[in-house]
Amino acid sequence: MKFKINRNLLLENLNNVSKALSTRNIIPILNGIKFNLTKEGLFLTATDNEIVIESFIDKKDIKLIKEEGALVIHGRYILDIVRKLPDEEIDIEESDGNKVIIFTDNSKYNLNCFNLNDFPNITFNDSENNINISTLEFKNIINEVIFACSTQESRPLLTGVNIKIIGNFLECTATDSYRLAKRIYNLNDIIKENINIVIPSRNISEFVKLLTKEDINVNIHLFNNKIIFKYDNMIYQSSLLNGTYPNTDNSIPNEFEIEYEISLNDLYNAVDRASLLTSSKEKNIIEFVSNEDVITIMSMSQEIGKVEEKLKGNKLKGNNIKISFSAKYMLEALKTFDSEKLKLLLNGEIKPIVIKSEENPDLIQLILPIKTF
Amino acid sequence: MKFKINRNLLLENLNNVSKALSTRNIIPILNGIKFNLTKEGLFLTATDNEIVIESFIDKKDIKLIKEEGALVIHGRYILDIVRKLPDEEIDIEESDGNKVIIFTDNSKYNLNCFNLNDFPNITFNDSENNINISTLEFKNIINEVIFACSTQESRPLLTGVNIKIIGNFLECTATDSYRLAKRIYNLNDIIKENINIVIPSRNISEFVKLLTKEDINVNIHLFNNKIIFKYDNMIYQSSLLNGTYPNTDNSIPNEFEIEYEISLNDLYNAVDRASLLTSSKEKNIIEFVSNEDVITIMSMSQEIGKVEEKLKGNKLKGNNIKISFSAKYMLEALKTFDSEKLKLLLNGEIKPIVIKSEENPDLIQLILPIKTF
Repeated sequence: MKFKINRNLLLENLNNVSKALSTRNIIPILNGIKFNLTKEGLFLTATDNEIVIESFIDKKDIKLIKEEGALVIHGRYILDIVRKLPDEEIDIEESDGNKVIIFTDNSKYNLNCFNLNDFPNITFNDSENNINISTLEFKNIINEVIFACSTQESRPLLTGVNIKIIGNFLECTATDSYRLAKRIYNLNDIIKENINIVIPSRNISEFVKLLTKEDINVNIHLFNNKIIFKYDNMIYQSSLLNGTYPNTDNSIPNEFEIEYEISLNDLYNAVDRASLLTSSKEKNIIEFVSNEDVITIMSMSQEIGKVEEKLKGNKLKGNNIKISFSAKYMLEALKTFDSEKLKLLLNGEIKPIVIKSEENPDLIQLILPIKTF
Repeated sequence: MKFKINRNLLLENLNNVSKALSTRNIIPILNGIKFNLTKEGLFLTATDNEIVIESFIDKKDIKLIKEEGALVIHGRYILDIVRKLPDEEIDIEESDGNKVIIFTDNSKYNLNCFNLNDFPNITFNDSENNINISTLEFKNIINEVIFACSTQESRPLLTGVNIKIIGNFLECTATDSYRLAKRIYNLNDIIKENINIVIPSRNISEFVKLLTKEDINVNIHLFNNKIIFKYDNMIYQSSLLNGTYPNTDNSIPNEFEIEYEISLNDLYNAVDRASLLTSSKEKNIIEFVSNEDVITIMSMSQEIGKVEEKLKGNKLKGNNIKISFSAKYMLEALKTFDSEKLKLLLNGEIKPIVIKSEENPDLIQLILPIKTF
């Protein structure tokens, strides 16, 4: 392996694949990034056995290819080195068996490499079940639900995001059993087979962070045991969580006795301020009390004191209500909306609270109330 | 106590005094901020028994004073509340004995207060030994030396910054016994008594962070057992470390056998890149080898590999040298200079390395070499 490449180009691609380097990997080879220089170009690959990221640099973008070949270089070191080098051309060449020399005019690094044969054998195949979706839309969909995933390992499936495809409908769901976020999306593609998989939330959240170019599509290939995202010059593969995700369709009520229209900003600020005196240990409980068009948000602590926030609501239907819920959950749910007016839909003080907006009817946020008596 | 005040003004002053609230204070009253509303204005005070900060808001800047009085309010809560309130006027009034009500049009907080009598009795007196110094200069002086303080409690005095005043010379020194930073400054004021004190580095660093207005002076009052800074509408008092700071004058050589002139940027970048393969556990040792006007910076690790950085130096005097030192210490020392050319002054491979610049001859950085053989 022997080539010359622009520093910024290499850095950008190393940055992408480095997300698959685990910070606490006890299997040494998984700290390596595989450089595979072929006649097509340079393939960079990293994996922590959970996810695999491959980034490809086309030969036309490589300054000079003198000799093809492959090496597994220590990921942290090569990343730090390229990051600290000035933006000029970098020469990289295999040396002396299993070593690599990285050099510029003034700098010369000589690194020991991992054994190429130890690197996991990775092949990416295509699936008949694949869809195309705009990067921006995909980012939004995931961000609208992912925060509701459970962080508790006691029910592992709930730590993932459930993705279902039925016909041309994509349905993303996340729940920790105290709240639920669901987003439905109308695909352009139709998939013959129904899909119902669960992606570990960390893996999908890392992928979404890589999506910086919003004007291109993500191509998603779905398998029984893995998911592959193709985006730009990158392939991102994630393992799936095993098991059947709970059916959440019946958890979301369709009819409501009480309906309020409320300004998103007013509600967010009132809940945010009322939560200041609550304790995260006790789920930041606040009380929501409606009296016709006046809503009071309250919280109280014997030790610290109490707070009352007033805001205007527009009661569309039903009786006044007094209901308690987690301020943290409400704030996280409210953050997924960007319309000015929200609908708060209720069925009484021990029934789920549903939040929707008219602008985005395909997004549903649900929060279970907390009994305080 | 009953008054109305602009939210931004109150927030700014609360932010200042909150730096004296300890995050892990087990004495409850020290979590409080004392509000003392007098006919002159509002005094806000907080202390963790190590430092005291008082911030004053003149009555002319307070929207309405209805009733003077004093209360000790929980610092974290009042700060969070005022931070989250919209920028409008806030009403604050004592209620029901030892409580306070904080309210705006839509929000109403009712907080329990601490017992006023439990708050430490604090009076600030003036010292005859006081100097005036420009805020910008003072910030620079402290930042040029403070990083060299020891973080080890085994020699407590070395965890502080030594401030000496002799005639009209201010001398700031910090050392952890492996490196030393010293800055001399010519005062406009003359103090009759010689001063030699040690300020805990955390305390002075917190104070320096508060200095956002660079066009005014800091007025420093020096005592045997404390130091008081008067700045803007603020008084900042810090305790001192007890004991006699080691005399460091003889540690700094005056004559040098070897002198190099080197570009600050070139040296910084070379040391920074060479340090990538070193380990912080082993003090990030790198080797500096000069051969007439060519300098090579090297580091090597059996496990990882090796690096060589070349740069041009201008040998003014002496023989070639090979010397090892901590890259971390060198980088921290180099960061205090802003001139393009530095002087590296040496007396052999086991003698201290001194760094100076022509633009700022009153700043001296010294690093002890590390024996590697």
